[in-house]
This record gives sequence, structure tokens and C-alpha cells, in this order.
Amino acid sequence: MVSARGTQATSQAEQGGDVASAGKEPRTARGRRTLRAILDAAAAEFGEKGFHEGSISGITRRAGVALGSFYTYFDSKDAVFRALVRDMSDQVRDHVAPALKGAPDQIAAEQAALAAFIGFARTHKEIYRIIDEAEFVDPESFRLHYATTADRIARRLQAAAARGEVRSDVGEVHAWAIMGMNVFLGLRYSVWAEDAAPEAIAETVATLLAKGLAPEG
Amino acid sequence: MVSARGTQATSQAEQGGDVASAGKEPRTARGRRTLRAILDAAAAEFGEKGFHEGSISGITRRAGVALGSFYTYFDSKDAVFRALVRDMSDQVRDHVAPALKGAPDQIAAEQAALAAFIGFARTHKEIYRIIDEAEFVDPESFRLHYATTADRIARRLQAAAARGEVRSDVGEVHAWAIMGMNVFLGLRYSVWAEDAAPEAIAETVATLLAKGLAPEG
Repeated sequence: MVSARGTQATSQAEQGGDVASAGKEPRTARGRRTLRAILDAAAAEFGEKGFHEGSISGITRRAGVALGSFYTYFDSKDAVFRALVRDMSDQVRDHVAPALKGAPDQIAAEQAALAAFIGFARTHKEIYRIIDEAEFVDPESFRLHYATTADRIARRLQAAAARGEVRSDVGEVHAWAIMGMNVFLGLRYSVWAEDAAPEAIAETVATLLAKGLAPEG
Repeated sequence: MVSARGTQATSQAEQGGDVASAGKEPRTARGRRTLRAILDAAAAEFGEKGFHEGSISGITRRAGVALGSFYTYFDSKDAVFRALVRDMSDQVRDHVAPALKGAPDQIAAEQAALAAFIGFARTHKEIYRIIDEAEFVDPESFRLHYATTADRIARRLQAAAARGEVRSDVGEVHAWAIMGMNVFLGLRYSVWAEDAAPEAIAETVATLLAKGLAPEG
């Protein structure tokens, strides 16, 4: 599928992207659909049972594909778990991206992104269990997910600072603080209980950030 | 040990508190020292090996106590892990408490608490692995740790609001946001790399909070 540069990342994650084991990337649309089905099944399997209790046969059964199809794309249970962490990280990024783009300024963008993230986590609660379990099963993926996310936030903030929308010294500490807020608010208001509107939560945080990161002077 | 009400929580955690299995609470100072040694050994064992690879014999070897001493206080590996999560939660609270008390206002208190927490996490890096693994090994303890911590922050903020130090509508969302910041800043600047001073990180966050939570009008 040919797509504009700006939307390529989105369509990659939707299709399962380039997360298959080395040399096993799908080359046809049908292959990409099968890979996507395997990843979605892996999210359900590991989200419900955890990595150790989850199995390749459980994944193929949920995906409705033969065991051979699994090995067409992945070398092992470890490999599909690693691919899944990267896929979920990409899915979060892609789900939040449109919210970021439509906002009039960076604080409004962060507000829309948080509301979008909480909404996404409500329909993908397994994302917490999977990324959190990566700390133990696949520490490198765990680290990559958070380092990449924090870096993305820091670059957004610094671009906003250059536009005069936030204080000039925004950096890594602010990025990790915002990421931490978002992760914990998602845990509390998506995974634990949906007892507040995502928009209301995001507005409270945006008020904090608008004043807390206001340009100097 | 007789202690004033205000410091009882501290001395309980220092001694291993009432975390032994039901009916197995130590009754002597020597027993409390043994329990404390077992908990510290369990932190090292589970912090290094994780819950599944960690063993009771590894704990008793590290603690320098006989296997019988372990069973004097705990029924099982699950029981000592559960006790350890609660003990680490109490240790964080007790380590941060003096910083909170000495500050002139609530923002300064939160600043001192974050610096103290990052310092504590640098010398107790295993706390992340243990509390994070509780999500899988002992979900109830995981939930209790964060629910209790958020509730403590919310009550501090609401007391500060009553004194006019922060905006009047502070509540659970702010508490979870602050907890999330602190947890992720500890992960980044204690567990991953100690490449910034705790005081500098805490000052950046305090500036954000001072403006972000400033009283209305």
C-alpha cells in the first residue's frame, strides 16, 4: 500500500508493521493481515494469561491460523512477545497522533493526547499488563518503549518552546514527568475503574501544565 | 520499644513491622531483628532474581538464618513476597516522611519528598522490580501500594488547599499525576542512570507544581 509519508507510520502499525522475525516479513497484503491477526491474538493471550502461561498454540487458536502460519512470521514465543510490545507502543503512538495534530497549541495537544490515550487504554486494557511484564520478560523492549515515548514528548515540548508556547527550558525531566502522569492516570482511570470522563481528567492535567509550563516573564 | 505515636510507623517498618504471617509476629527484639534480616534478604533475592527464580533457601542464606527461622515468621515464598511489598511501601513512606514535615509549605514539601524518594530509590533500586513484579505475583499488594500512596498525596494536597497554599479543587487526579511523575522520574534518574542531581529534578517539578497548582485568583 502506497501512502503519504505522514501516515506511513500509522498504516505500518495497523498492518503489523515490520515486527516479524528477521527474514520473515510478510510480502503480500494477505500475509500482513495474517501477521496482524497473530499480533492481536497474542495481545489477548498474553494480556489474559501473562507471558509464562500464554502459549503459541493459544495464540494460533485465537487467531484462527495454523501453527505453521505462526512460524512463517515468528521464530518463538519470545519473538512474538517482543514484536507485540513494539506493536502496542506503535499503536499508542498512532492512536494519539491525530489528537496531537489537530490542536491549536501544545498544551491543547497534550490535553487531547491524554484524553485519546485514556480512551485507547479503556479498549486495550491488556496494554498495561503486556508492557509492564516486558520489564521482566524483555527488558530491552520495556526500556525502548519508555525511552522512545519520553523522547517524543521532549521533542514536542522543545518545538513548542521554540514557538513561545511553553517555557524555554523544557526538557527531559518535564517529558518524563508528563509521561509518568499519563501512564498512572491511564492505570487508574482505564484499567482500575472508568469512573471519570477522559476529557475531564485531561482538562485537569492541561490546566496544571498550562500554568506550570507557561512561558517566562 | 515504646515510641511516640507520630514515630510508631517508622519504627514498625524499621523492625519489620507486623508483616509476618498471621500468628507469627515476633514478640522479642531479637525476633524483630531476625524478621528484619529476612525481609532485607528477600529484597536482595527477589530484586536480583525475580519472584519465580528467587527461593526461600536463597533468602535464608543471604540473611544468615536457618530455614526454621524463616518458617517461624512466614508460611511460604508468596507470604514473604507479600510482606516485602508492604514493607517496601512502608519504607518509602517512612523515608519520605521527615522531608515532608520539615518544609515551609506544601510545594516545598513535595519537592523535598521527591528528592528524598529519588535518593532512596538510588540505594534501593530493587524496589522498582519488586513492586512492579507484584502486579503479576500479588496484584492485591500492587494495588494497595499505589492506592494508599495516591490517597496520602491527595490528603496532603487537600490539607494544603485548606491552608490556601494550593488551588481549592485539588483531588485524586492531581494525586495520581504527582505519583506518576515521581515514579517515572525515579525510574529514569535512579534505576536507569544517576545522571542528574535529585535536588535539581525535584526543583524542576516543584516549579511546575507551584505554578500549576497555585491558588485561584
